[in-house]
Amino acid sequence: MRRSGEDFRTIWQQPDDPAVVQIIDQRRLPHEYVVADLRSWRDGEHAIKDMMVRGAPLIGATAAWSLFLATLESRGESDRADFVRRAAAGLAASRPTAVNLRWAIDRMLGVLERTIDDDIEDAFAIEARKICDEDIEISRGIGEHGLKLIEEIAAAKSGDTVNILTHCNAGALATINWGTATAPVYFANAKGIDVHVWVDETRPRNQGSQLTAWEFAENGVPHTLIVDNTGGHLMQHGMVDICITGTDRTTRTGDVANKIGTYLKALAAHDNDIPFYVALPSTTIDWTISDGLKEIPIEERDPDEVARIYGRAGDELCTVQTVASNTGISNYAFDVTPARLVTGLITERGICAASEEGLAGLFPEHAADTR
Amino acid sequence: MRRSGEDFRTIWQQPDDPAVVQIIDQRRLPHEYVVADLRSWRDGEHAIKDMMVRGAPLIGATAAWSLFLATLESRGESDRADFVRRAAAGLAASRPTAVNLRWAIDRMLGVLERTIDDDIEDAFAIEARKICDEDIEISRGIGEHGLKLIEEIAAAKSGDTVNILTHCNAGALATINWGTATAPVYFANAKGIDVHVWVDETRPRNQGSQLTAWEFAENGVPHTLIVDNTGGHLMQHGMVDICITGTDRTTRTGDVANKIGTYLKALAAHDNDIPFYVALPSTTIDWTISDGLKEIPIEERDPDEVARIYGRAGDELCTVQTVASNTGISNYAFDVTPARLVTGLITERGICAASEEGLAGLFPEHAADTR
Repeated sequence: MRRSGEDFRTIWQQPDDPAVVQIIDQRRLPHEYVVADLRSWRDGEHAIKDMMVRGAPLIGATAAWSLFLATLESRGESDRADFVRRAAAGLAASRPTAVNLRWAIDRMLGVLERTIDDDIEDAFAIEARKICDEDIEISRGIGEHGLKLIEEIAAAKSGDTVNILTHCNAGALATINWGTATAPVYFANAKGIDVHVWVDETRPRNQGSQLTAWEFAENGVPHTLIVDNTGGHLMQHGMVDICITGTDRTTRTGDVANKIGTYLKALAAHDNDIPFYVALPSTTIDWTISDGLKEIPIEERDPDEVARIYGRAGDELCTVQTVASNTGISNYAFDVTPARLVTGLITERGICAASEEGLAGLFPEHAADTR
Repeated sequence: MRRSGEDFRTIWQQPDDPAVVQIIDQRRLPHEYVVADLRSWRDGEHAIKDMMVRGAPLIGATAAWSLFLATLESRGESDRADFVRRAAAGLAASRPTAVNLRWAIDRMLGVLERTIDDDIEDAFAIEARKICDEDIEISRGIGEHGLKLIEEIAAAKSGDTVNILTHCNAGALATINWGTATAPVYFANAKGIDVHVWVDETRPRNQGSQLTAWEFAENGVPHTLIVDNTGGHLMQHGMVDICITGTDRTTRTGDVANKIGTYLKALAAHDNDIPFYVALPSTTIDWTISDGLKEIPIEERDPDEVARIYGRAGDELCTVQTVASNTGISNYAFDVTPARLVTGLITERGICAASEEGLAGLFPEHAADTR
């Protein structure tokens, strides 16, 4: 990933002062590029809670680095481990439904168990960095496997533009680098394949228009913003060759929970014989459940996400209320796309069918656990 | 229709000064209720062009009343008919793709042919009023026929709430009164049937959140605003009993062009066995075409409709730019829902299947013309 021509990750230690962790305040994109300093675990908690960072992998990484900051803060404490554990509990509550948050915190607490007090600062920094490095490797794996799908389409179209549709931001900004759904796109673009991405606006939080469009622009990926209503029309008219989205949680049978509206795009892809792929790190597979519609709870969020929009008015940045103040609003954050509508799952280990057999083939160790 | 408890139409002559025609400036809703005076045909042209009024029937009625204003302006002219004809040409160009605009203008010009100069003011006022009265009768017919569908669902649910989903504004504000898709809802609500409407926000122009929600609130129709991404999830979970939308143009075979995103909702309804109805005045049926996807051109509109949003910031009303200024945008205004996804068409003459046979049964005079 590049920004203004320079390589970047979405979270890093300040080079001159390793006691400061830095992130991009994603709430301000695309209007302003603001780097925020995290100097305490409370800063990290605030960054997660207020959605300065979002996306399951990045939330997990932010929690990990926040616990590193907690180890620095614990220097004067009589029981440093206790201080860190309390920080972990606070962080875990910052976005209670995020799977990777709990996973990253548990992994960091594991380090605490096997480290003596004097070494915890270094040990935590090493583990947080490792979580980030591993996430980048996962994105790289997804990118390399997904690249083949795009190469096949490019070959079939004799080099004509490959049109990809994506929903929400399953991009670099949701991970440490490359993203999940976007990784195959970045790899194809870097290889000189003629790609173009239809970017769904993704109401209500507009992650498509504000984040995906921003990172594609910074990285020279040709793209066009559309409202969420448009994808069906494009697919009816042969203007989409493949859909690739991310996922928040996938059942062991291949049902996919993702940002609200994903199901509608999958229906349109199915109706027009267009391949619909979901890119995912295997950590987002929930091996314990088999019926996404019945078993995945769908979070309802603040109606203000629908009613209020942030943007630029002249030189000022401000939030406007777009609907009458007495309008009742329901704001469901996710929906579930049944496996029957998903052409395949792109994981760091390879591509498989969205089915129990498909996933068991790639991840036999988990399949054995849960049946 | 009522507003603040009083009956209203969407266009009327000012009671104290019949030389002034009044409309609601719909661009300001729901934030402000502003009545605009039209004192010349140029005022009417501006109202149509700037979308102070929108919706095919209301555009037609506004053009008709604008031509009445032109007759008043023609008083000092040597050739009054010529003046009116030039006004008609100007009005016809204000929204070139609107079918009802051309239809209403032609009808008014027909009055010109058969009226002597001294009587044209009265004759034009009478014809404009007649166009409005007829439109109300059409809405009433659609309302009465559609009401039966809602009554049947209410009976099947033993009186439980009937949940209706609609897209865009095919409401009173798009017509003179009652609307098309909303007419059955108003009639059911007035009859005491327990109805609740899911109102699609309808990006990019937000006619759902800004117009449909407003008129339902004014008329006491229970409703909840959702983003366009949400309908599929609701249908998967049994939270929608029937979908009713409007249409801009329907082929003689029952393919339906309507606001972009309608197709996605029809797919979801079909996937979940939920009836999907389209309400339409028969004037929007295009008897000359049979393949909506191939034969109905889809208008592309100004990208600023996607990039900029109007709303309230504190005490001020302003427009904010929500995306980066360098973001490319495609803004397709309509899509086509194939007849196979449409359960039925609700017209002023009754309900029929979305098929050549269905429409020919209700409108045999047209069917005979075109085959």
